[in-house]
This record gives sequence, structure tokens and C-alpha cells, in this order.
Amino acid sequence: MSTEAKNSVGGPVDGSVGIVTPQSLHFDERVQFKSGDTLENFDVVYETYGTLNTAHTNAILICHALSGDHHSAGYHSKNDKHPGWWDNLIGPGKPVDTNRFFVVCSNNLGGFQGSTGPSSTNPSTGQPYGPDFPMVTVEDWVTIQSMVSDRLEINIWAAVIGGSLGGMQAMQWGIDYPNRIKHCCVIASTPKLSAQNIAFNDVARQAIRTDNEFYDGRYYEKDTVPSRGLRVARMLGHITYLSDDLMAEKFGRTLRDKKAIDFDYNPEFEIESYLRYQGDRFARSFDANTYLLMTKALDYYDPAEAHGGNLGRALASAHADFLVVSFSSDWRFTVERSREIVKAIHDNNLNVTYAEIEASQGHDAFLLEIPAYLDVFYAYMDRVYNELETLKEDLS
Amino acid sequence: MSTEAKNSVGGPVDGSVGIVTPQSLHFDERVQFKSGDTLENFDVVYETYGTLNTAHTNAILICHALSGDHHSAGYHSKNDKHPGWWDNLIGPGKPVDTNRFFVVCSNNLGGFQGSTGPSSTNPSTGQPYGPDFPMVTVEDWVTIQSMVSDRLEINIWAAVIGGSLGGMQAMQWGIDYPNRIKHCCVIASTPKLSAQNIAFNDVARQAIRTDNEFYDGRYYEKDTVPSRGLRVARMLGHITYLSDDLMAEKFGRTLRDKKAIDFDYNPEFEIESYLRYQGDRFARSFDANTYLLMTKALDYYDPAEAHGGNLGRALASAHADFLVVSFSSDWRFTVERSREIVKAIHDNNLNVTYAEIEASQGHDAFLLEIPAYLDVFYAYMDRVYNELETLKEDLS
Repeated sequence: MSTEAKNSVGGPVDGSVGIVTPQSLHFDERVQFKSGDTLENFDVVYETYGTLNTAHTNAILICHALSGDHHSAGYHSKNDKHPGWWDNLIGPGKPVDTNRFFVVCSNNLGGFQGSTGPSSTNPSTGQPYGPDFPMVTVEDWVTIQSMVSDRLEINIWAAVIGGSLGGMQAMQWGIDYPNRIKHCCVIASTPKLSAQNIAFNDVARQAIRTDNEFYDGRYYEKDTVPSRGLRVARMLGHITYLSDDLMAEKFGRTLRDKKAIDFDYNPEFEIESYLRYQGDRFARSFDANTYLLMTKALDYYDPAEAHGGNLGRALASAHADFLVVSFSSDWRFTVERSREIVKAIHDNNLNVTYAEIEASQGHDAFLLEIPAYLDVFYAYMDRVYNELETLKEDLS
Repeated sequence: MSTEAKNSVGGPVDGSVGIVTPQSLHFDERVQFKSGDTLENFDVVYETYGTLNTAHTNAILICHALSGDHHSAGYHSKNDKHPGWWDNLIGPGKPVDTNRFFVVCSNNLGGFQGSTGPSSTNPSTGQPYGPDFPMVTVEDWVTIQSMVSDRLEINIWAAVIGGSLGGMQAMQWGIDYPNRIKHCCVIASTPKLSAQNIAFNDVARQAIRTDNEFYDGRYYEKDTVPSRGLRVARMLGHITYLSDDLMAEKFGRTLRDKKAIDFDYNPEFEIESYLRYQGDRFARSFDANTYLLMTKALDYYDPAEAHGGNLGRALASAHADFLVVSFSSDWRFTVERSREIVKAIHDNNLNVTYAEIEASQGHDAFLLEIPAYLDVFYAYMDRVYNELETLKEDLS
């Protein structure tokens, strides 16, 4: 594979993969989820960037987090203002270099952006699934991603990469499909949620589920959305994604477009205005049932649980090489959580590269252009690529 | 004063002040608040424990926090299951020893437990004030407390003591009435809220204010309450009162009365059940408009702001001795915030006793029976008492 290869979806433009078009796969088969529920006849929407080599060895799977989707890099149109959510990481000349790798990112089941989810029509009723959509777990998503891999004729991923909830999926790939993954990159993640993490999730869920417009999840049929609950949920979530220090630095106690306090309930401080804006934007664009499902998948994930709480034993099947990255100011999934993952990998005598990045941005840091973080990723992905090249020479 | 003196409200029973009866003061005068709004004709409800000595020198003022009130110690009836909110600290033989001191605790204006607040009848309309109740600040509460002091003929407080939002009031007493306060005890408090603190408060307020039953604060007239919003606000608040470690230790990922996950939206984990219970209980008993006012008073407090951000200069008028206490696991008002207060006191060459208590309970620690914390309080209040005794000898 030449480093001059063009990616398949628009060509490198200013370090971007350019304009990308989502694709979709339909599955007729019946899948049973961890909950025991089943689903048949479903779609998975995905995007690809870069070119799959003839040996099908240069494929990278990107797993998305709570509010992410399949659109991880590039733009959907010329007028698209924002690129995909991990555009800092993925593109020509970027750490996940689309001149070298064929990158795949699919939207998890339960989403609302094209993959079948609560807002999709339930063929047995002709109405949206709503609350009848199965509770999907990290393990289920990995199963579905393995089915996507089969369809794309990718037998082995050069790497599976994910941040936060996506990092859980990457880790589960290492556990469930040890022969299909060479490198496992677990970024800003955790082997399980803490009680505090679950607590925040449940407050968010209660805000949504007690919204008058929620209608037990059947709001589609009422032609409404529980936007007030979703707004509060997102405002709360947003606090946990940022660090205390970053908020202090970025907002502090700066007043909102005024010189003195007004003593009313309009935003007095910038931070209030910022959070309400974020909440409003999210409530207009995100599906509440998807949000509920994603937070539940986070809560449920605990691979060590079936092994008496021993994460090392949970990872006994794995034999990928690992990259684990944590961020100093991330108080949602702290560096200690990543160290637990590193310890469990060590317990199995597997290779692991671990980086604790000094960054003030909190959990959100994993999405941002932080030089020390990108440097680690460049170096690691160079190694992944060099292994592919060595393999090619060995074969030739 | 004899240490055998009985307190005035029931006598020492098992270290308790016993049965107490709230009292009330009516004020006819017009008071102007920091916001510019005024109020006339209002009531302040309060409780007292112990006996005021003839020289009126042994009085202690207790200032309450967000969800507190005037009932800081003892019981309201024989069947009362829970004592006042600071019963661990106040009582015969306790750190704030009611055999030695005359303890006063009044309910802040804006409350709903007897002091005039949004749920009280506005004489000019015959309806509850609701959103027309003035926005009250820490400084306003201190003004009102000084009026209560006058009525009770207490010219000088031996100590003003408060935790959290109550600590802000104690500090403001030190600033506004330096000649009326000998000791100022600021517990688990902060000189101002951080952006993150304000953010959490605003999420809570938005949950309440966007509840369909809020009716712009005029829910009394609709014979309803915004209980769903208040429930979410309290659930969220509760997370910030507990430490991550304590939640992990107390709840972890323990399931709620079951052996396996149910994959539904009922509480799966103990922590969900606990928080929802706390939220439900609070929503049944607390007034939403009071909650809004209290969180705004927290947001607004920033004595340094008028002094270019210099807290030392804000405290220039003070000449009390100070006790400052913080708790290691308090992430709402961290030890660093208390150290800022200590520094500002040092800057003014005032006496300060500072204790950072190792405790896992988070912000809530200030309400709990933690031996190292109570020891500090015993020692400090001994000093306060011994000064009174010395003074008495000097006078005799």
C-alpha cells in the first residue's frame, strides 16, 4: 500500500477525508442480545475512510461513545460546518492515517442516525419501537460489529479503537474476538462505571423519563419529544465531561453580557448560558430513547463481574497488543480506572502502551487536539502500520 | 454560669436538648435587600437551646445551609424520629454545649418553615408571593439575623457558626458586624462558588423551572408542586454532597434486591434506589421556590468581588477569631477553598484555627459525627467558653 493512496470518499482536503457518504447494511438474521431479547431485520449505517488493501489487513474499526455515531471524520456536504466527531484523530496524515488505513465506523444499534433503534419502525406493529426496542449492551454492539466485519470481508482488524463508551467496545473486542483484532486502543475509558457514574446517569434518565412529554417512551406517536428532560440530562452530562479547572479557566464567575447581577433567573453567569445552549442544542437533535439506552449500556458494562470481579481473568482470552490512554483531569473516568485496565493486561503478560496525558479538559480531552495525546497516537499507529508493512515483506 | 444549668427547652435527655418549640418574631419595618427589592411585615422563626446568662455574653448563632432550617437540635415531639440537623454538634455535653451556651438558630427569609418566604401570603395580593418574593442574599440574611439579635438583646455573639451556605453567613457576620462577633466558625464552606458549583445549581434550577407543574413559580395557586423537577434537583444535589469514595464503599455496583440485572428502567443498582428515595422524600417536603432562592444566594456570594477579587481586603473589617474546618473528600467545597479563607484571615493578622479533617463522607461530613471533627470543635468551643469565664472573673 502506498502512502500516496487516495482515500475512497473524497480525497485529502486540508488534512480531512473530505465529503463522506454514509452506507448501510441490512441484516435479515435474528440476533439474540445479552438481555435475552431478540431483533431481526435491522440496518447498520456506517462510514469508511481510506482504501482497503488487497489483503484486507489494513482495516481499523472506530467505536463511538454516548452521543457519537458513525460519522467520525470528514464532512457530509460542502456546507457542513462541523466535521465528524473524531476528525482530530482520523484523516490523511493524522494519527489514524487514512492514507495508510481503511477506517470503518458504524452506528450502534439503538441509535437514531440510520442504524435500527427505538425511533425505527417496528415491523410487527407499524409504529416506532420506542420502549419495545431491546436493551442493548456493549457486548451486543461488539457482536453486531463482528457481523459488519464479516460483510465487509474484514477478518482481522489491524486495530479497534474507541474512547469512553467506545473504549469499552474496543476492550470487549479484545475479549470476545481475540483472533480478529491485532491492536486494541482503549481511550479515556473504564472497566466499569462507579456508583457515582451510575448516579449521574440515573439522574439524567429520571429527568427524561419524568418529562411530561416522554409518554413512557412513545412520544413519537404523540408527535412530541421530552426536550426539557433531555436538555437537563445533557446539561448535567456536560458538567461531567469538563474538568472543574477548565470550567474555572474558561468561564469562572464571568457574567453573561452584563456588568452587574440582575437578580433574576435568566443566565447571570456565562457558565449558565453555555450549559443551557448546549442542552437546548442537544435536545433538538438527539433522540431521548437512544440516550436512555446508551446510558444503560454504560451502567451494565462490567466484564470482570462474571470472573468474581477479577478484570485480569476477564481479559484471559485476549492476546492483542493494547494502547491505553487516560487524561489527568478526567474525573468521569479517572486515570485510576485506566490503570486498572493496564494492570489486568499486565496480569495476562500482554503488551500494553499506557499514557497518562496531562490535560486540563477533563473527559472531553479524548476528542480534542492535544499535542501530547496525538503524539502518542501517531507513534502507536506508526507501529501498527509498520507491522503491516513487515508482514507484507514477509509474505512477498 | 454553672455547667449544671438546665437548658430552657426541655432539659438534657441522652445528650439531646430534648423537646424544643420554635418561636417567632414579627418585624414591621421595611428592609431593603441587596437586589434593591424591599420587604416589610415579615416573620422570622427561630429556636433556642440553653440559657442566656445575665450578661448576655454566652450566645451562639447557628446559620443554616441550603436545605436546613431553624431546627438545628433536639426534637419537636416525643414521637419525632429525627433530631434537628446539627444535633451531633449541639446539646448538653456536645461541642456546642447547651449547658454553657445559649444557642440561637433562625430560619432564613425565603424559607417555608415559618420565616416569610415565597409560600407566605403577600399582603398586597392575598396570594402567595411565589416568584414575587425578593431574591435574598447571604448579606441580607446576616442583616435579618442582626435584627433578630437586637430583639433577643444579644449585642455580641460569643460565636457565629455555620457550615456550607451557613459558613458564608458566619463569614459575612465577621465582615459586616466585627463588633458583634467574637468567634467566627466557617465549616465546609467557600468564599465563592466555582463555575462547576454554579453549573450544578443551574441544572437543578432548570429541572425545577421547566417542570410542567412549576407555572412560573405560581404552583401554589394551581394546588400542585413541581415535584419531578425538585426530585431531579435533589438527586443531583445529593451526588455532590457525597464523595465518590463513599458512594463506592456504601453502594458500589451492588444490585437492588436481586441477583441479576433485569434490563429495564426500574432501579438495577442500590445507588439508583437510594437516590430516587432521597429525591422523592425531598420533593414531598421542600418548597421549590425556596430551593431556587437558596441556590441563587449560593451563586451570588462573593465578598471579594467588590475588592477586585481580593478576599483579604474583603475581610479587612473583621477582627473576630476564626475557626475554619474543611474535609478531605469534600469535592463540592474543596479544602483549597477553605485554605483561601485561611489565607485571607492571615493577611489581616487575625487568629485562625484551621483543621483539614480526613473524612470519606464528602461535603456531608460537616453534619456527621466524625470524632476528629468533633474533637476540634470541642477544643475550640472550650476556648470560647474559657474566654467568657475569664471575662466574668475580670468583671467580678
